[in-house]
Amino acid sequence: MRVLVQKYGGTSVANLECMNKVREKVLISLDKGYKVIVVLSAMSGETNRLIDLARQWSHRPDPCEMDVLLATGEQTSVSLFAMLLKDCGVKARSLLGFQVPIQTDKSFGKARILDIDNERIEEILEKYDVLVVAGFQGCDCSQRITTLGRGGSDTSAVALAAAINAETCEIYTDVDGVYTTDPNICPQARKIKKIAYDEMLEMASMGAKVLQIRSVEFAKKYNVPIHVRSTFSDGPGTLVVQEDKSMEAAMVSGVAYDKDQARITLVGVYDEPGVAAKIFEPISRANIVVDMIVQNPSREGKTDMTFTVPKGNVEDTLNILKKAQADIGAQAILHDVDVAKVTVIGVGMRNHSGVAAIAFSALKNENINIMIISTSEIKISCLIEEKYTELAIRTLHEAFGLDQEAPRKEC
Amino acid sequence: MRVLVQKYGGTSVANLECMNKVREKVLISLDKGYKVIVVLSAMSGETNRLIDLARQWSHRPDPCEMDVLLATGEQTSVSLFAMLLKDCGVKARSLLGFQVPIQTDKSFGKARILDIDNERIEEILEKYDVLVVAGFQGCDCSQRITTLGRGGSDTSAVALAAAINAETCEIYTDVDGVYTTDPNICPQARKIKKIAYDEMLEMASMGAKVLQIRSVEFAKKYNVPIHVRSTFSDGPGTLVVQEDKSMEAAMVSGVAYDKDQARITLVGVYDEPGVAAKIFEPISRANIVVDMIVQNPSREGKTDMTFTVPKGNVEDTLNILKKAQADIGAQAILHDVDVAKVTVIGVGMRNHSGVAAIAFSALKNENINIMIISTSEIKISCLIEEKYTELAIRTLHEAFGLDQEAPRKEC
Repeated sequence: MRVLVQKYGGTSVANLECMNKVREKVLISLDKGYKVIVVLSAMSGETNRLIDLARQWSHRPDPCEMDVLLATGEQTSVSLFAMLLKDCGVKARSLLGFQVPIQTDKSFGKARILDIDNERIEEILEKYDVLVVAGFQGCDCSQRITTLGRGGSDTSAVALAAAINAETCEIYTDVDGVYTTDPNICPQARKIKKIAYDEMLEMASMGAKVLQIRSVEFAKKYNVPIHVRSTFSDGPGTLVVQEDKSMEAAMVSGVAYDKDQARITLVGVYDEPGVAAKIFEPISRANIVVDMIVQNPSREGKTDMTFTVPKGNVEDTLNILKKAQADIGAQAILHDVDVAKVTVIGVGMRNHSGVAAIAFSALKNENINIMIISTSEIKISCLIEEKYTELAIRTLHEAFGLDQEAPRKEC
Repeated sequence: MRVLVQKYGGTSVANLECMNKVREKVLISLDKGYKVIVVLSAMSGETNRLIDLARQWSHRPDPCEMDVLLATGEQTSVSLFAMLLKDCGVKARSLLGFQVPIQTDKSFGKARILDIDNERIEEILEKYDVLVVAGFQGCDCSQRITTLGRGGSDTSAVALAAAINAETCEIYTDVDGVYTTDPNICPQARKIKKIAYDEMLEMASMGAKVLQIRSVEFAKKYNVPIHVRSTFSDGPGTLVVQEDKSMEAAMVSGVAYDKDQARITLVGVYDEPGVAAKIFEPISRANIVVDMIVQNPSREGKTDMTFTVPKGNVEDTLNILKKAQADIGAQAILHDVDVAKVTVIGVGMRNHSGVAAIAFSALKNENINIMIISTSEIKISCLIEEKYTELAIRTLHEAFGLDQEAPRKEC
């Protein structure tokens, strides 16, 4: 039994016309001899409509009940799509989260998948050619409905693909793949044919919103090939797979950016053990995600500490720091919300030296000052003034030759 | 543990304002020391909206998938209402059909309840003060979602009340009880304080749409007292209970009517064994419900056969009869859609003679001709010209003194 998992996002099931397109795709896969597990999101706009509805009812809607409400979105999509399939004689049925079941923990609103019963799915697949599974939802051990958080349908699809060892997990969306950078900013951006899980994770976390991060982590863990492609065209999209030799040929595979960054600087804090903990522990307890952190070399027992947080958390962060100010000896607390982060990403960096030098000199040539630098094995991030974001992206994109046909051609 | 079941219909949960009224009712019951099982319908209009949606997708929507779609209506109501309760500190949770579970057969769209696990409900009731249960829905033995048909939430409520031996099953609606007849037609109509299950069954099947018939059958079978009352006022409504002595005091408890009747007459069919079967078997196979049937005394081996069907089935019925016409020897097939049925109902008829005589003479005094008469132990139905419906109702209502204060006062 050859099984494909195909996930279609909200814009792909927005209305009858879109769903008919999706049906065509599914029928083509059936013709090729596959059985298909179709994972659907809620029709576009529906989840937001339900959230707005809940907010009319309650200022802080109960998270368990919110999940019961939100789950209706996907329930609507899968029942309508199963009707469409059955109308043209396909042996199909819908499956809700609790029916699969997709077992999750009890973190309502952001649940994690714990287990999928592959034997039960295979049993159902004996009787049907297409299973239309509600994405985004699962149930906990006491059969309460849970949801997986924004973009959770991607994770549902990858988890199902992993559970039943599907050949590929196809993620259909309204773009035709993952690009070297945002084409709205850089018209020279090209579609990437093949990208490593780790690169994709960096792309996704940097704000390239094609795939939910967790779904990529899941795919990496269980080695599920993901194919990101368009519902509305037929060409191949982007394969997200294990790193291989061909990927090392290019130094850099993409440029990402994140404008949701704010910089905070603590001037003249004591340079002694435990100070960093005193600063970041209360911030972490407030569920604020700190991204880049740099500490200047010490002078006369004092140092400056700079880090970034999401723009929406600046006020809370400042309040927390003011309480700790005396204890850590900070002479001043500065902040700047007009900053952005640009990042060059590529597994090729592991084998190419000089990537950082190329990036820094390209930015310098445009007179773009770098405030913070942060690196990993496969990325270099620079915090810059927000107004230079687009220029920096185009500059870096060109500097690494990303507008040229890439050497990864084999897929 | 004292438990009340309260069912609220679509108009009672139509919006936030209505749901707040429902919450007040529930809080009052909690104050009185009850635990409450609240059964909700979909918000008014929602089920029709979903049916319209499905019809855009498919001319004949698959019944299994239709139930998955329709179930979202109640799912939305219960999650929103549970949020409201939790917001004011009530220990509450929602329960969907599959979570109770309300086990049904596999008749999608018109499933029958087979079993409700009372031990599980009692277990959950230990932890919560209010359970908000989605009405109208259940699941079959393989966990597929089923729905119980129009008005099914009444049946959900009564079945839950039976399962856990609730003191009363309160059915809250937008009217304040069951009336002696339709107040829109007869302003003298009075609210009935107490009515027997059998009377209510006749009232309901005659078109008094307050309660789903099946819920009354269920209540009768398990002896569940039903209290029909208004969400929007506080007075007592109508108790639907086992027949008792007090009910016999009145000859008649109500006058019902049904305008959805058409009369069909077969003139001169053979008066021999098997003719009735030849007429009614093919009609029944076409799922057409035949109501009143009369056969004239035979003359020269021939007889006339007259019966009624719903107006919408006249054409199909005539086509079926035309095919059988030669076989049954009918000289002509007549039909008349301008007819209506009026019915006087009362368990008191069992002990009062002369009820029929009063009814017939009252109609005669108004020059209303009776086309067909059909009786049971507790009702007399007359088919009349449709244009006299309202006059007949008012006439019968007055003839049986229903506009006077009734002797059933003890509740």
